[in-house]
Amino acid sequence: MKVSIIAIGDELLIGQVVDTNSGFLARTMQPEGWEVADVAVISDSAAEIRRAVSEALKRSDVVLTTGGLGPTRDDITKQTLCEIFGGTLREDPDVTADIIDVFRKRGLKLNSLTAAQALVPTSCRVIRNRVGTAPVMWFETSDPRKVLVAMPGVPFETEHCFSREVFPRLLEAFPRRDAIDHRTFVVAGITESDLAIRLESFERDLPQALHLAYLPRPGIIRLRLDGHADDPAWLSRQMDIFSRRLIDECGTILLCEGDLTPAQILLQRLSDSGLTFATAESCTGGNIARTVTAIPGASAVVCGGIVAYSNDVKSRILGVDPATLEAHGAVSIPVVEQMARGAIAATGASLAVATSGIAGPGGGSPEKPVGTVCIAAASDDGRCISATHHFPGNRSRVVDRATTTALLAALSLL
Amino acid sequence: MKVSIIAIGDELLIGQVVDTNSGFLARTMQPEGWEVADVAVISDSAAEIRRAVSEALKRSDVVLTTGGLGPTRDDITKQTLCEIFGGTLREDPDVTADIIDVFRKRGLKLNSLTAAQALVPTSCRVIRNRVGTAPVMWFETSDPRKVLVAMPGVPFETEHCFSREVFPRLLEAFPRRDAIDHRTFVVAGITESDLAIRLESFERDLPQALHLAYLPRPGIIRLRLDGHADDPAWLSRQMDIFSRRLIDECGTILLCEGDLTPAQILLQRLSDSGLTFATAESCTGGNIARTVTAIPGASAVVCGGIVAYSNDVKSRILGVDPATLEAHGAVSIPVVEQMARGAIAATGASLAVATSGIAGPGGGSPEKPVGTVCIAAASDDGRCISATHHFPGNRSRVVDRATTTALLAALSLL
Repeated sequence: MKVSIIAIGDELLIGQVVDTNSGFLARTMQPEGWEVADVAVISDSAAEIRRAVSEALKRSDVVLTTGGLGPTRDDITKQTLCEIFGGTLREDPDVTADIIDVFRKRGLKLNSLTAAQALVPTSCRVIRNRVGTAPVMWFETSDPRKVLVAMPGVPFETEHCFSREVFPRLLEAFPRRDAIDHRTFVVAGITESDLAIRLESFERDLPQALHLAYLPRPGIIRLRLDGHADDPAWLSRQMDIFSRRLIDECGTILLCEGDLTPAQILLQRLSDSGLTFATAESCTGGNIARTVTAIPGASAVVCGGIVAYSNDVKSRILGVDPATLEAHGAVSIPVVEQMARGAIAATGASLAVATSGIAGPGGGSPEKPVGTVCIAAASDDGRCISATHHFPGNRSRVVDRATTTALLAALSLL
Repeated sequence: MKVSIIAIGDELLIGQVVDTNSGFLARTMQPEGWEVADVAVISDSAAEIRRAVSEALKRSDVVLTTGGLGPTRDDITKQTLCEIFGGTLREDPDVTADIIDVFRKRGLKLNSLTAAQALVPTSCRVIRNRVGTAPVMWFETSDPRKVLVAMPGVPFETEHCFSREVFPRLLEAFPRRDAIDHRTFVVAGITESDLAIRLESFERDLPQALHLAYLPRPGIIRLRLDGHADDPAWLSRQMDIFSRRLIDECGTILLCEGDLTPAQILLQRLSDSGLTFATAESCTGGNIARTVTAIPGASAVVCGGIVAYSNDVKSRILGVDPATLEAHGAVSIPVVEQMARGAIAATGASLAVATSGIAGPGGGSPEKPVGTVCIAAASDDGRCISATHHFPGNRSRVVDRATTTALLAALSLL
């Protein structure tokens, strides 16, 4: 099924808010073989909404819009859809009840602008939004059958409404016949172009129904083998054969089968081995801790961490020897190894990683330019590995790369 | 000047990568009055590229494309632009030299796929990319004059190339005559619809040349007053008058004038007062530390932080009394106050914030449901404030809201 997404909102076009909804919608629909053909990001303008909706309905069977349904006067999506699909605005008592409920739960008072959110076009089927105040609206045309669903743009609401209410109804409205399959593999320690050369003959040998996608992320590359065919048994066999061959071709650069991040792989392996984890971060400033704790269930494995930004904290909490700091500087292998060992001592974890580096933009020197990061991983059996890295890019990119590299270092100790 | 952006890449449509480039481009152009009229996210398909480019060139004077210039065989933007604008592909010796340089700096070996990146259409002007391997290509048509610039999609490269090379050349190619102005204000402690009601008469009184935009973020709302007129002196006077009036209307909910995040405001005020900052995080898992250390220069103000995920770490490093943990539970006001005070003791900071809560999806109970977060802020003069909050949404939303609320709590102690 081909889907077009229209993300509506001036805040997206001026770069104040990033459209994360389209990616969420694509990831949710993909396992069912529904493909996002294109995304249009447009302003809160009736003319733009009219143009984008008419073009999208020409190209795709299903059109999803997000945003433009807020209570303020610049949100005009509802009125415009009412003009496009016909009918008038009416108050929906169920929606009014939901709005009152959301406000009561959040301890807020209803006002006239919010109450206006209960107005919906008579030409749509209303799907209730139980986590916000803007209702979901389902418009339909026949011959050919096309569906447009307008959803709120707050990511939490979009995600809730789409997963629980909208997508199940869409699957019912457009049942499918053919078979699809996806297998993801994560590799590390190779550039995208070197990997493409290594997999050249593999890709050449793939049957037409299979396709390999390269999905690079800082420090890793995800490979996704996609299959699409009429015969599910044949497809499954082909996917098995080429998955096995891909695993062979990758060899030691394969980090895992499945669509996992380095943090997820690490947490899974720690959990399987009954081990615990801690962090000692200088230049990454808490980003490693945040990355692992963002995963539900992290509390079973993560003891905690220390953000040792100042030298004083490195010594006080992590027990780094002030003489080592003096002799080698904070960004050095001896310091980062003491930090990793110190994190184990301070938290009682089985495994710890440590970072110390120059994320920039300031602080660089000819010997230690911006992007220099020392990373260590230590385990409570006394093993410790460490290396000095030079990451390209700006502050956030250096932090991201250092985070992934530290997680991969921890993995290498398991 | 009206700009259309085309973000090219299957990875964007399947939701593996979020398009942050468009927002960056919009924010960079906005101070000069250049507006992004629309963004199209499309797949690596020649037909789609042709369609999107032809539609965008109809609507806008300037078209920016990002992505689709990688070394792998699925990237076909360059070939397609060569077909659209004419000419053939030739090797550019300067680009070859840049590629060799980038590879040498990263300690990588050149391969045949990467070398192919030095091929450029004869119909374009090449702008060198000094931080990556894909060159920037400037295409131009006359009568009417339209410019299309194709840039690489790796955000770090897009940002570098656009800020330093592309936008200065665009400003030269399309000099402007009229005046524009923007002033941003940050408010907290009010809902968007309550704020809209409070500012109803203010908005009604705005002259046509001025417009107020609401830009909500978790826990805060940014208000941007935009002005656009022929007479710069008149515009500046009007912006001053309505800025002053907006500040008056906001009163105590105004957090700051200027486009700053709560973390930036906090760091600025701490730095101005010669104070230092620390964090003690349970449910936010390092996100507060990461948010403040993401700001360049944070090391002058941030001592460090403790991610006290386990009760053991709360007691060991932060000195939380095990009896308090036993009596009240980890998610409680007494514990979070001890954590904040403990962070000051452990790090020597002047000010600290602490969080302990249930981010979900698991761990909730009838008395303390998912979303319950206790937040404290303490200063080294003995003051300590705390409150229990109930944040809606999923794990990442709860963490984001708790982070902003903790930073606002720290600000309230200054």
